[in-house]
Amino acid sequence: MARVAVLGASGYAGAIAAMLVHRHPFFELAHVTARSEAGARLDDIHPRTRVPMALEPWDPEVQSDVDAALVCWPHRVAAPAVAQLRERGVRVVDLSADFRLEDRGIYEDWYGEHGAPELFGQGVYGLPELHRDRIAGADLVANPGCYPTAALLALAPLARAGLIGDVVIDAKAGVSGAGREPTPATHFISADENMTPYKVERHRHTPEIEQELAGQGAAVTITFTPHLVPLAQGELVSCYVMPAREHTEDEVMAVYDDAYAREPWVELRLGPPGVLEVRDTNYCRVSVHCDGRTGRILVFASIDNLWKGAASQAVQNLDVMFGRDEREGLA
Amino acid sequence: MARVAVLGASGYAGAIAAMLVHRHPFFELAHVTARSEAGARLDDIHPRTRVPMALEPWDPEVQSDVDAALVCWPHRVAAPAVAQLRERGVRVVDLSADFRLEDRGIYEDWYGEHGAPELFGQGVYGLPELHRDRIAGADLVANPGCYPTAALLALAPLARAGLIGDVVIDAKAGVSGAGREPTPATHFISADENMTPYKVERHRHTPEIEQELAGQGAAVTITFTPHLVPLAQGELVSCYVMPAREHTEDEVMAVYDDAYAREPWVELRLGPPGVLEVRDTNYCRVSVHCDGRTGRILVFASIDNLWKGAASQAVQNLDVMFGRDEREGLA
Amino acid sequence: MARVAVLGASGYAGAIAAMLVHRHPFFELAHVTARSEAGARLDDIHPRTRVPMALEPWDPEVQSDVDAALVCWPHRVAAPAVAQLRERGVRVVDLSADFRLEDRGIYEDWYGEHGAPELFGQGVYGLPELHRDRIAGADLVANPGCYPTAALLALAPLARAGLIGDVVIDAKAGVSGAGREPTPATHFISADENMTPYKVERHRHTPEIEQELAGQGAAVTITFTPHLVPLAQGELVSCYVMPAREHTEDEVMAVYDDAYAREPWVELRLGPPGVLEVRDTNYCRVSVHCDGRTGRILVFASIDNLWKGAASQAVQNLDVMFGRDEREGLA
Amino acid sequence: MARVAVLGASGYAGAIAAMLVHRHPFFELAHVTARSEAGARLDDIHPRTRVPMALEPWDPEVQSDVDAALVCWPHRVAAPAVAQLRERGVRVVDLSADFRLEDRGIYEDWYGEHGAPELFGQGVYGLPELHRDRIAGADLVANPGCYPTAALLALAPLARAGLIGDVVIDAKAGVSGAGREPTPATHFISADENMTPYKVERHRHTPEIEQELAGQGAAVTITFTPHLVPLAQGELVSCYVMPAREHTEDEVMAVYDDAYAREPWVELRLGPPGVLEVRDTNYCRVSVHCDGRTGRILVFASIDNLWKGAASQAVQNLDVMFGRDEREGLA
Repeated sequence: MARVAVLGASGYAGAIAAMLVHRHPFFELAHVTARSEAGARLDDIHPRTRVPMALEPWDPEVQSDVDAALVCWPHRVAAPAVAQLRERGVRVVDLSADFRLEDRGIYEDWYGEHGAPELFGQGVYGLPELHRDRIAGADLVANPGCYPTAALLALAPLARAGLIGDVVIDAKAGVSGAGREPTPATHFISADENMTPYKVERHRHTPEIEQELAGQGAAVTITFTPHLVPLAQGELVSCYVMPAREHTEDEVMAVYDDAYAREPWVELRLGPPGVLEVRDTNYCRVSVHCDGRTGRILVFASIDNLWKGAASQAVQNLDVMFGRDEREGLA
Repeated sequence: MARVAVLGASGYAGAIAAMLVHRHPFFELAHVTARSEAGARLDDIHPRTRVPMALEPWDPEVQSDVDAALVCWPHRVAAPAVAQLRERGVRVVDLSADFRLEDRGIYEDWYGEHGAPELFGQGVYGLPELHRDRIAGADLVANPGCYPTAALLALAPLARAGLIGDVVIDAKAGVSGAGREPTPATHFISADENMTPYKVERHRHTPEIEQELAGQGAAVTITFTPHLVPLAQGELVSCYVMPAREHTEDEVMAVYDDAYAREPWVELRLGPPGVLEVRDTNYCRVSVHCDGRTGRILVFASIDNLWKGAASQAVQNLDVMFGRDEREGLA
Repeated sequence: MARVAVLGASGYAGAIAAMLVHRHPFFELAHVTARSEAGARLDDIHPRTRVPMALEPWDPEVQSDVDAALVCWPHRVAAPAVAQLRERGVRVVDLSADFRLEDRGIYEDWYGEHGAPELFGQGVYGLPELHRDRIAGADLVANPGCYPTAALLALAPLARAGLIGDVVIDAKAGVSGAGREPTPATHFISADENMTPYKVERHRHTPEIEQELAGQGAAVTITFTPHLVPLAQGELVSCYVMPAREHTEDEVMAVYDDAYAREPWVELRLGPPGVLEVRDTNYCRVSVHCDGRTGRILVFASIDNLWKGAASQAVQNLDVMFGRDEREGLA
Repeated sequence: MARVAVLGASGYAGAIAAMLVHRHPFFELAHVTARSEAGARLDDIHPRTRVPMALEPWDPEVQSDVDAALVCWPHRVAAPAVAQLRERGVRVVDLSADFRLEDRGIYEDWYGEHGAPELFGQGVYGLPELHRDRIAGADLVANPGCYPTAALLALAPLARAGLIGDVVIDAKAGVSGAGREPTPATHFISADENMTPYKVERHRHTPEIEQELAGQGAAVTITFTPHLVPLAQGELVSCYVMPAREHTEDEVMAVYDDAYAREPWVELRLGPPGVLEVRDTNYCRVSVHCDGRTGRILVFASIDNLWKGAASQAVQNLDVMFGRDEREGLA
């Protein structure tokens, strides 16, 4: 049994993370924190969690009596809290972007000054399907962004096979990706019956995807555009790959089979995946299509942006860090 | 005053077409037809039309006492009806695919045998922003598909400027595009909170877009993938263009300004368009972005798939054919 | 031609009111005002209006050069602006609750202190189907609340016939009724796939409905409960009437026929109405059912809460005030 | 360990029932049947179940090798299958209406001829919160309808306390309640952004609610109207009770506390419940309000129509029948 604190449990991802830890047979949910809603009960704010615990204000002296923490804070403010937890020996999965990037200049270009420079670059990138071994031994795991999770699961097999010459990633996600803060963009009247591209040319997940693709062998400059669609949870990436070399369809299919046949949370499908099929789960569904007419390889991947794209992947990382079967707490 | 019949007025596009003709200051709605729902009143089946006319069974002897007809039937069954109307001197806007393609082999590959081979290839492609002059003198206009409408309005200026080297078109549309027939895919429970690619590698609008792009100067093989999203009406195309040649951002912007500054139904915008902004209108909203990082030109276009993507564009074509101001009946 | 100003045109109802005045053949839209968004163009904030006018800050010296004004401000702040307009001879339709109630004590109980006590009670209640003659001669018209509009159109015929002994009104409305302010309740994630009663026992439209029912002859204490449902625009009231006296079904139907046969904006239907049928229109659809098993009379009425429930009814009132055909600007 | 067959597992409720049995620590899912989709795998048809079992055609000789069966077939066709299972000693929870009613004349009035008259009236009404003891010993349990489940949990405490003089039940449910068959009413375009009353005066759940209310002590004729709202799963009943006698608010609250304080699946709340709070769970949320102004008692109850309103309640009944903790398989 390991004791776990969830910081920032009043946000969407934090609440689900708390729920999953609470239900987990091996982990014990020891603390849930929130800033403005401290004092309230988590199941009053997020009834579907059914977690009857009071939200505490964050205090490193109080919540560090745990074996691990999931930090569900925004980037830049997450880093100092992570540093305080690490000082006290707590193993951390950080859901922000603060420890995902390896190049500090790139971090600063896209996010600004880092909140704990002494720890910069010390996180292991927490996509278990790519880095399981390194995560197993890590004390600080950087949980991937939602778009990178789907995009990398879609593209990593091609990257490793040297098959990516150029790639366009058209991504679509539901409104929960915009966070719990009420804004004009998250107002029902703005989002309902609407869809729109956003952050064109400048979404922060771009360098993260490029870094990890490069790590898998594809040092490419990606074209990445996210779109907001009118649903609550769910994310789909449509990847259009111009291959770097000759190949056969059989080879491509074998590359994916090899990558995912034994992965518990990736489902290879013949037909393109929908997001409803993976709603409220840690699954990623992937389909691959070799288009003979155009020569492109098309890869689609769907996840639940709050689960595999955030909270359940964080718990999957915890499972790996603590040597547990990744299926036991998420099925 | 010109008298107009709408064939197939019980479908989504047909009902809106009938409504628009009914409201139009110049056209008079003389007949509305339907097959299985003949006898019913259109405003009972489609209350929002407020058209208090009875649906008639199609009979070329009966409904040909008109100056023009909008044929809102599926491809292959539309062609024979169009032929019967043309024999009787009725000018036709056909909303099916039957008269859009110029190459009969391509038509047969994608749609099968043609229902009126003697007329094949005689339709003028009815995108007024590209072919206004030819539409003005035409007796048979082939109303474009919804995806081609948005894609061509997005890409034609680049095609004419010789700027398209390669293009990926990721398209998203609401459920009305699947038609009024209740099917597993159009069931609320399947579509709600879901999104999914469909007809990957094989959507029939592909050759139509390629034909028209070639006509504008860009003989490219496109990668085109449509997606179903959970909203009723609305369509967005996200176009990722690898330029064929050097260019400046100013040049690209000028190309679009030249193309659309005087078009009443195309709105150039700085930020990416949403579909709600054009809902229930004949407008197409377009934004263009030169991505210095990747070298790609990104173009987004949104339309209402049932309006500019079908019914209102058909009426716009009627306006052009009869020499009317294209704004008078659609504003 | 009469010149009209719309105050508070950046809200949902105000924007639609501005659009309708702008399109109206008799009225000229002279000014649109907004507080925090002054300077912006209305069609940038609300693209669907297609009103290319700049929002002005409210200044009674500036915007009073008009024949009439539609005041789309919240209650309590509306009254002083109305008073300033009236001082300058401008005829006003006020969309707030400030001039709807006749009993000042009741107003104060439900809303607090009144912002222009000297004008209290001087508004004519602007439901044209009930008070057309008085509206025609009025300088200050109090546009009804959305729920009272639907409830009174549903119940007034029964009230006048002395048929209401007791009534339960279960009302359901879309999210736009909660206004444009982003709040936790209007967040897409809260509203989507949800529905909930709200303001149980204490919705402010209660005294307004009771006042007007009493005016029609039914001095009853109503049970009124609104519910929030996941759609943008649309409102349905389900009225459960225990009759005050013996009656026949024929008598009840005749009462409704008499009331509405010549009303341009009320549609009597045999089957229960849906809200989509009246979306984006000034129509109210009503159905009446005499339940022999229980003895109750059931009346359902659907409107678009932003149109007949607010903006288009305000324009309908303007039409009546200026002696215009109520259909000309709203069809 | 008890072996369980789910008949009709391709429908919405059947699929969830199969999933819940599959996950259950005590029950083993032995068979899943379907008619037209026999041969397919359940997780291909309903991916979210993650039940990797092939659907079998129903054959009483094949699927009767079980301890219990959940029959998820429509009324009238369910009864003969139930009879065949009972003949072979299989304990049954039937989700249809065939064994809910005690009065055969009433059954025939509302449903027509019964499919297994020899068994008529032998089912125990399977609302554990009302009839737990009788369910524990039963071999045939009639799982309640979705509306009766919510309405009876809302009203039973008042009925037992002799507090119901008269009651109006206004019910609202999502589209899944209409079943998996694609119809005009379940088409996304009909349901989205719409809501409407349906089966006014004649919904078949009416006599079921009245029978059970009478069994609890309130022999009243109810007014019951269901409404269709645009969401997938979720049901809310708004009950307007005119009390039969004097009472205090404290008494009413005590009545509910007594009824539900120890019930694992009923949550009493101060504020009115939303349906999202109970989505995908066996919970029913209830709030009670004594309206001093009108004298009415208002009770709201929300459930997931496919879970507590069908599938999970069936498993809860199984738990009771087999002496298991009702929480172990549903939490």
